[in-house]
Amino acid sequence: MAKPSLPQGTRDFGPDVVRKRNYILNTIKNVFELYGFQPLETPAMENLETLMGKYGEEGDKLIFRVLNNGADLADSIKYVNENPDAFLKENFEEISELLGKGKVELKEKEGKVKLVVKNKEQKERLKKTISEFIMTLSKRALKYDLTIPFARYVAMNHNQLIFPFKRYQIQPVWRADRPQKGRYREFYQCDADVVGSNSLLNEVELANIYATVFERLKIPVKIKINSRNILQALILLFGIPQKGTEIIVAIDKLEKIGIDKVKEELLRIGLSNNQIHSIEKYLLITGTNHEKLLQLKILFGEKGHYERKGIQELEYLVSHQIKNLTIDFTLARGLNYYTGIIFEVTAPTEVKIGSIGGGGRYDHLTALFGASDISGVGISFGVDRIYDVMEELDLFPKDVFIGTQVLFFNLGEKESAESFKQMQQLRNKGIRCELFHEQTKFDKQFKYAEKRNIPYAIIIGEKELETGTCNIKNLITGNQQTISTTDLIRMEFK
Amino acid sequence: MAKPSLPQGTRDFGPDVVRKRNYILNTIKNVFELYGFQPLETPAMENLETLMGKYGEEGDKLIFRVLNNGADLADSIKYVNENPDAFLKENFEEISELLGKGKVELKEKEGKVKLVVKNKEQKERLKKTISEFIMTLSKRALKYDLTIPFARYVAMNHNQLIFPFKRYQIQPVWRADRPQKGRYREFYQCDADVVGSNSLLNEVELANIYATVFERLKIPVKIKINSRNILQALILLFGIPQKGTEIIVAIDKLEKIGIDKVKEELLRIGLSNNQIHSIEKYLLITGTNHEKLLQLKILFGEKGHYERKGIQELEYLVSHQIKNLTIDFTLARGLNYYTGIIFEVTAPTEVKIGSIGGGGRYDHLTALFGASDISGVGISFGVDRIYDVMEELDLFPKDVFIGTQVLFFNLGEKESAESFKQMQQLRNKGIRCELFHEQTKFDKQFKYAEKRNIPYAIIIGEKELETGTCNIKNLITGNQQTISTTDLIRMEFK
Repeated sequence: MAKPSLPQGTRDFGPDVVRKRNYILNTIKNVFELYGFQPLETPAMENLETLMGKYGEEGDKLIFRVLNNGADLADSIKYVNENPDAFLKENFEEISELLGKGKVELKEKEGKVKLVVKNKEQKERLKKTISEFIMTLSKRALKYDLTIPFARYVAMNHNQLIFPFKRYQIQPVWRADRPQKGRYREFYQCDADVVGSNSLLNEVELANIYATVFERLKIPVKIKINSRNILQALILLFGIPQKGTEIIVAIDKLEKIGIDKVKEELLRIGLSNNQIHSIEKYLLITGTNHEKLLQLKILFGEKGHYERKGIQELEYLVSHQIKNLTIDFTLARGLNYYTGIIFEVTAPTEVKIGSIGGGGRYDHLTALFGASDISGVGISFGVDRIYDVMEELDLFPKDVFIGTQVLFFNLGEKESAESFKQMQQLRNKGIRCELFHEQTKFDKQFKYAEKRNIPYAIIIGEKELETGTCNIKNLITGNQQTISTTDLIRMEFK
Repeated sequence: MAKPSLPQGTRDFGPDVVRKRNYILNTIKNVFELYGFQPLETPAMENLETLMGKYGEEGDKLIFRVLNNGADLADSIKYVNENPDAFLKENFEEISELLGKGKVELKEKEGKVKLVVKNKEQKERLKKTISEFIMTLSKRALKYDLTIPFARYVAMNHNQLIFPFKRYQIQPVWRADRPQKGRYREFYQCDADVVGSNSLLNEVELANIYATVFERLKIPVKIKINSRNILQALILLFGIPQKGTEIIVAIDKLEKIGIDKVKEELLRIGLSNNQIHSIEKYLLITGTNHEKLLQLKILFGEKGHYERKGIQELEYLVSHQIKNLTIDFTLARGLNYYTGIIFEVTAPTEVKIGSIGGGGRYDHLTALFGASDISGVGISFGVDRIYDVMEELDLFPKDVFIGTQVLFFNLGEKESAESFKQMQQLRNKGIRCELFHEQTKFDKQFKYAEKRNIPYAIIIGEKELETGTCNIKNLITGNQQTISTTDLIRMEFK
């Protein structure tokens, strides 16, 4: 048997990593609950048609399809038998081509069979054929994000749900992306959304969730906000409405490419020097949140629908004194998804990890599934990146690694029977304990405690057994004391 | 767009269900931690070759295979191009047969193409061909249980692990089984195992974990134990060694088919009347644990290796006074997997749900993956069945459903600004609160609280705002009181 391995882009999480990840996830979860959000879990598998067409052409390609020998194939066979015409018309030419009848030739030479693919184009075709053939046999897929399954859930259950429906969801998703540093094929997403309420109070709550979570995790963040309405106003005032998306894409690149390159792009898109000058003014707005809003009002004049709406949104959020909240007029986030306030959370620049969270208000989500249109607003936490930031800034509390608090040594049959009794009493009190699994020398038991990061050892040997005592060693400080076993129950092992 | 749906055999877990499931899972997890077990998480996907051949022929068929357009197909194409001979020799005949060259004929009649499959045997062959073809394109699969991924993890990491390695793992697994009541294609498993220690102390610990978990969940269970060594002795004393497996299978059916049918089966297997009489005596042993052991010793005579070992194992466990532990000599559990103590936990007979947990000692686990042989012992909790038992016996605590504890009413701009301020103070104290998302009539806000199962409402209206007070309603008892907002922070909302 070959050495066992993991599929590319997937990871095992050993005990220490699980504990650190849970520290992050439980912190987030507790804050979600504090803010009245409710847990939802959807299955790993969704029907293929639920997912296809929701993530753009590139996204569709990254969806992992699931097959099984049983029902899927039985269904396909049934289909072939019951609809041979349809099946063959749909598939025969391509499949037969794949197998050598068409451009792909089958040659026999010196007793060896050889498949000859004539050129690159045909290789591509071959690839496409196989994939289309297989797709007819695959009806399920692994979920690609938490948003579409959530929309599917709301559409399926919207008669039973209580609106506004505030849910959080912390689950793995899968993407058939090329794995690289920090990019995995299986990773957790961590989302909170409110659907069925247009109130800006939801945006305030979500921004406060960000502020509270990162305060608890001790990560100094910026919570950047902007509004798609401001960007829309910008395009109407100083841009070309038909080229709105292109202008936003150019602005979105500011941090990466700098102001001069952005101006070049805007010129290329067809904006006048006057227009570009105004957009530059917009992009260079600085100061406190109030100063920024003031400058924007001067620049925009507060005339039209979009600027009024956008400014009102931002003013409402700013008025709630949310910690670390910063208006950032250069923030654009994606393309056509968002319709109101948008969020992005960034870690301190020195850790060189970009965004660790983002979100915003969106419309039309459940309309994808034929349910009446329900607007929503949501945020998401980038768990893997938050983990990396916590590692780099050494922010995990030291006690996160402590599983077992006390190791009872095993020093013989009678001694370990007494240890076992004492251990069960401590466990009843909620103290996490182990009794070493076999009688062996001190050294080996100390080493086990050390490697396992267990802070206390309790030793009951022959002498202790006789005198009804036990010896407690703090393995971190080296302190030790001998106490009566009747007093053990009152000890704290912190 | 068609109505959205879920893949067969999968489930959404809405807020109430998640809370109830978490109540069970957190109870189990806390006990695992109390006993020094450490968390492990492995990916949903494993390499197909890690899983194949580990679950028997029937099991292999139930493994969900995962495909993706990208790398898998590229790999297959690369394989076809680089190893055309091998690929074709392996696949061509079957694939070409599938497409009409062999027994499966392609006919054109009245302008319609028709695939003619001659008989049932060929239909089966066609099915097999497609599935084999696809398998060459699928290199990953969804995990089928937690045991094999755990063995793979231990084999991959055994140089870094500290033995005995005590891990617990609570994760979903997938099986392409025909869905039916209580059987899902995606479900959670919940396992604890110790590997690298032969000490019977581990069996005692695991039995105590069962006892503690079910005591905390308030489910009155029987924790049945037996030893494979006792069964082995039984076969050597009163059976036919070569037919050991058949005898165990027959005994395993006792509960289902009754003693008379078991005796018929034993006769069919070829046992003499004397032998069957002795086995019947064995199966009918009753009494307290000590009485059972005494009767067994009389029946077996305590001569050979296996009976000595088995009796010693059972006596050791019984001596530790584990709650609800019952020796059950009819317990057999599976076939060739276990080598020592075996466990099975059953719910009270009135709920008609069989086993809700099981496990035992096994050998050779990691040898599957070429690592030196490491023995282990483990138990597992049937989470879905435990959930059903808790529902049926109405054992979920009432407060398990309470997410948000307090709803602040929204009664105008100034009023809600004050409510917001008070709410944030309560949240800082750890109380889960919401402010209703919009100003609306009392009725609607009460209804929201009621439907969401929120036990307290806090009302700050015009009058309360003027007097610096707030009105607290207990929505369960109907009690209400008006207090100064400065006193609010000292209230408990339980």
